[in-house]
Amino acid sequence: MNEEKKKAMQNLKTAKGQIEGIIKMIEDGRYCIDISNQIIAAQGLLKRANMQILKQHLNHCVKEAFLHNSGEEKVDEIMKVLEKFAGK
Amino acid sequence: MNEEKKKAMQNLKTAKGQIEGIIKMIEDGRYCIDISNQIIAAQGLLKRANMQILKQHLNHCVKEAFLHNSGEEKVDEIMKVLEKFAGK
Amino acid sequence: MNEEKKKAMQNLKTAKGQIEGIIKMIEDGRYCIDISNQIIAAQGLLKRANMQILKQHLNHCVKEAFLHNSGEEKVDEIMKVLEKFAGK
Amino acid sequence: MNEEKKKAMQNLKTAKGQIEGIIKMIEDGRYCIDISNQIIAAQGLLKRANMQILKQHLNHCVKEAFLHNSGEEKVDEIMKVLEKFAGK
Repeated sequence: MNEEKKKAMQNLKTAKGQIEGIIKMIEDGRYCIDISNQIIAAQGLLKRANMQILKQHLNHCVKEAFLHNSGEEKVDEIMKVLEKFAGK
Repeated sequence: MNEEKKKAMQNLKTAKGQIEGIIKMIEDGRYCIDISNQIIAAQGLLKRANMQILKQHLNHCVKEAFLHNSGEEKVDEIMKVLEKFAGK
Repeated sequence: MNEEKKKAMQNLKTAKGQIEGIIKMIEDGRYCIDISNQIIAAQGLLKRANMQILKQHLNHCVKEAFLHNSGEEKVDEIMKVLEKFAGK
Repeated sequence: MNEEKKKAMQNLKTAKGQIEGIIKMIEDGRYCIDISNQIIAAQGLLKRANMQILKQHLNHCVKEAFLHNSGEEKVDEIMKVLEKFAGK
């Protein structure tokens, strides 16, 4: 597993732990703004994980595709992801 | 627990399950674009959970505050959250 | 016009000027990453203008509505905006 | 000018027109939620313009760089843009 994937994995595991904590916060009736801030932190981790996945995708799959003349399809594919990503 | 908090809780639990699935996808060496799309789905669930928390915060805490003349502080507080939220 | 609206107005005017500059950058064949960064700056200004509009909406219209017992409709309305806003 | 740049240009021009309209809406004291929705529409156009710039950047500059073995720097550069972009 490459370095970027390892980082993504770590961020996802941290996000999972945070979400468990947030569920507990709601059960304990904690203040909404604190809950909301924790959800935003977890969103930030998922965003970072996604960036890391996309970065190594560009550096490996998209690179390979460009070297074999099929890069444009890969770019279309990645743009569809970014379209959704920029809206989350 | 009010209806909005229950929905937020459910979305957080689903997001947690999805993240476990995504970690497994990375371990299994699945295609990056598929992984990325799953992360985006989990981000969408967190976003929805956050909206539900904020909605019931407005309908309860902020309402109460307005009725007791301290609404502006609550609005400042919620704007800080939205500032960060809109950037995740 | 209240303070928040004036600030929003100013941000919108600055954004408009930036967009004129970006159009010129494209015509001049400037480097894409520089163009992209300028578009992001303009997006940031629009985001800020929107936050200012929403803030004074909460402090005026939504407050009034809560004091007259029709706050929940206003909250539904603002949540619909936030739903879209958080996705831009 | 390539097709993607032309589209980006068109979206930027439309966004500029919309912003002029929004400034007028504020001057006319129009309802905040309507103003906010129009700002969101303009944000959507800027986002689309940015995607079009980035798409053709990937298909031209990044492709060239990969073919000449300097792709990784270009990917770092584009990731920095996406980092900011995903947060607007």
